Amino acid sequence: MRNFMEPESVAIIGISRKTGPGSFNLMENMIKFGFSGKIFPINPNATEILGKKVYPNVRSVKSKIDLAIISTPREDTISCLKDCVVAHIKAAIVVNQGFADADSRGKEIQREMTEIAKRDGIRILGPNTLGVLDNFNNFTTSFMPLSKEKAPVGLICQSGVFFVGARKYSGVIGKGIDLGNACDIGFCEALRYFGEDPDIKIIATHMEGLSEGKEFLSLASRIVKEKPIIIFKTGSSATGAKSALSHSGSMAGNYEVYKAGMRQAGVTFLEEDGQMIGAVKTLLNLPTMKGNGVAVVTFSGAAGIMATDALERYGLRLASLSPETIRMLAELSPDWMPLGNPLDIWPAVMKHGADKAYSIALSAVINDQSVDGIIGIATAPVIPEFSFLDVSEALNDIIEELPCKPVLFWLYGPNTEEIGERFESKKRIMTYSTLEMAAWSLSLLRDRHSYLHRENNKVWTSNPVI
Amino acid sequence: MRNFMEPESVAIIGISRKTGPGSFNLMENMIKFGFSGKIFPINPNATEILGKKVYPNVRSVKSKIDLAIISTPREDTISCLKDCVVAHIKAAIVVNQGFADADSRGKEIQREMTEIAKRDGIRILGPNTLGVLDNFNNFTTSFMPLSKEKAPVGLICQSGVFFVGARKYSGVIGKGIDLGNACDIGFCEALRYFGEDPDIKIIATHMEGLSEGKEFLSLASRIVKEKPIIIFKTGSSATGAKSALSHSGSMAGNYEVYKAGMRQAGVTFLEEDGQMIGAVKTLLNLPTMKGNGVAVVTFSGAAGIMATDALERYGLRLASLSPETIRMLAELSPDWMPLGNPLDIWPAVMKHGADKAYSIALSAVINDQSVDGIIGIATAPVIPEFSFLDVSEALNDIIEELPCKPVLFWLYGPNTEEIGERFESKKRIMTYSTLEMAAWSLSLLRDRHSYLHRENNKVWTSNPVI
Repeated sequence: MRNFMEPESVAIIGISRKTGPGSFNLMENMIKFGFSGKIFPINPNATEILGKKVYPNVRSVKSKIDLAIISTPREDTISCLKDCVVAHIKAAIVVNQGFADADSRGKEIQREMTEIAKRDGIRILGPNTLGVLDNFNNFTTSFMPLSKEKAPVGLICQSGVFFVGARKYSGVIGKGIDLGNACDIGFCEALRYFGEDPDIKIIATHMEGLSEGKEFLSLASRIVKEKPIIIFKTGSSATGAKSALSHSGSMAGNYEVYKAGMRQAGVTFLEEDGQMIGAVKTLLNLPTMKGNGVAVVTFSGAAGIMATDALERYGLRLASLSPETIRMLAELSPDWMPLGNPLDIWPAVMKHGADKAYSIALSAVINDQSVDGIIGIATAPVIPEFSFLDVSEALNDIIEELPCKPVLFWLYGPNTEEIGERFESKKRIMTYSTLEMAAWSLSLLRDRHSYLHRENNKVWTSNPVI
Repeated sequence: MRNFMEPESVAIIGISRKTGPGSFNLMENMIKFGFSGKIFPINPNATEILGKKVYPNVRSVKSKIDLAIISTPREDTISCLKDCVVAHIKAAIVVNQGFADADSRGKEIQREMTEIAKRDGIRILGPNTLGVLDNFNNFTTSFMPLSKEKAPVGLICQSGVFFVGARKYSGVIGKGIDLGNACDIGFCEALRYFGEDPDIKIIATHMEGLSEGKEFLSLASRIVKEKPIIIFKTGSSATGAKSALSHSGSMAGNYEVYKAGMRQAGVTFLEEDGQMIGAVKTLLNLPTMKGNGVAVVTFSGAAGIMATDALERYGLRLASLSPETIRMLAELSPDWMPLGNPLDIWPAVMKHGADKAYSIALSAVINDQSVDGIIGIATAPVIPEFSFLDVSEALNDIIEELPCKPVLFWLYGPNTEEIGERFESKKRIMTYSTLEMAAWSLSLLRDRHSYLHRENNKVWTSNPVI
């Protein structure tokens, strides 16, 4: 994978002569992204693009090329790959679509690509891929603009939609591998690469189909002990599977086995879009949860009830708070206030201010032996009129001195984005768009703890039927 | 309810002398909100607040008062209510908490309030409530700032959190009634009021507990034929119910009956936070869906598969597109492109531009007899560099001439909020934050159609066990 992620020299075969906004010129994007290696543009119909000499083919380049990016009409793909073999290029990315994703002719060409990869010592990523992204090395083969943050998140996907839309799917990513149709390089290789990569702490995966079941599970169950692996599986429905895997019938039955195998291997397995972003931020930033006991700190009784409902749906329960915890809050509350879990601190907020009430409440519940995790409910006011209700700074001031338990907040109000970032500034408190999502996220931390501490949690070596 | 929603004169009992930012002064907020009627501030310890003469009690006011808002310590509530009775005031809102939501003393005071309401000709909203909101009459009793849009959405709730956070829960609301602890005015009265109110086209409800089951179902099954009724029920879990209803044990079993009764009455019944906002925008703006056949128009094969999975989870299916529909798209696509449903139009977008490809695709599928509803997948680019990918204007230009079927879009990209508003500008296309939510929302439109066209769909008059 190193030739793909950290090449020193790149050939771009089939590069467009169009440059500038809207042209999606791959070389232009690559330079803009900060790639400092050599680029050899290949186009028989041009002599110069963006001031660089253009070559008619890779054979005519006399320097060493680490990676070829092929973006030609599909009928030219095989001859381009053969040129690469002649030029001793070891890695190629085939960008275009129209292969196994299309008609029988496309399938035939893709089979031929697989053979070349097996036979001629060249590795192929794609076809039908945006290729790779490596923000730690300022390198991308995407013709679409991507974010450049050095996040410790490695993304493996089968569609460029996850690359370009990472903020929507997985949050910010630091490295990405789009397998596309996966004619050669598949999930195992990508997973192993991120598993060994010290820059990467969590691996988020979008998976349509998997042909290397046994090897993948064995690998995943080893890597997952150190780095959480999240798999968003699509094509789970009968018709979805037909689209995704081009084989229906037996799929529906096998899917449950597939899912069970993944879960047993310790993978966080997702089926709905919108879940991955929460799972990544949770498993990357928060400590795991040792038990099922949750404290809910709220300024609204109604929201506390909503949190309670959600917790029960994910097999979690309200912790029985200790008399000491209740006593600390009772000192801040009016005599008539019934205190329990959920812990309603609105009267305390009104009397003593939000900073004090929330700080004391959070310290009390996090120190409570019966509490394994905390869901907090607070407001996201617009600054400055209601800024006294923003407790993000007060809580971050004390959080590092407190026991290491997961703290998740649900914010409500007109300014959740800005206040949410403040809450998350030390990466010790994470915020969620619904209480449902917060409760679900806590359950992922509980599941991960259970997995890591299960006895006989050996690496998968049997032969699962997937 | 008219005295509560459209009073001409209001007494504010227990008004604070503090004014300005952070004081939550109810009178100040009411004036700022645009109330043009008379206000009589009541506070025995003040003579003037915000330039208005302050009275020691309501008895000393010699003009007619339509509504009293009581915000005093709980021990004074009963005597204030008795003063209101003497002053011939017919409606009172009790704002403070500390009643049935608190200790036995609080419960006792609340019981007394209920008796006064039954006996002395005064109606009471609350206690523990923000009161009412009526943007059509520029009136609110909330001490928290609220939005002022004249949306045809009526909200009934049991917590101020839904009032202040309406944007998060239900989207913009035009009128609202916070029942609080509901010592007198309950769900039936509020529902009837919105049912008869020509300003209101949809009713969104947050419900913790319901004591008037039979009457409510009978009323709801009549109103729902004209106006969709959405109920977000909280306290569904065993522990949640304990908090919400202060009675556990039998609740868990009864809950399924409760739910079934609501659904049979045609109510859209929700259990997770985050669902109401999608349900409101869907049922308010989009036509109902006649069958289960859905066309998915996408620029990404992967997203099409995700949509397919989600549709199946809600009992919907991919429509079999007619040869005519396929032919129209085939003319825009390369020969090798397999066309079906989901309809992947990325090559057509690249060749003919997004506006043309999306317009032709939407027209084709919406005119297809086999299609009952449409999920579109498009991008939300940042303007102007990628503005050619924003198809919101092109689609709104043609949508009014097309058959009336529900069109839901899922947008992906960095600018979903701005582009989403453009998509929704004519209220004929709605956008959703996930494909899961879009598919689920379509199922609500299908369910509503089924309900409205069910035979023997008579008004509920039997005696359900709830």
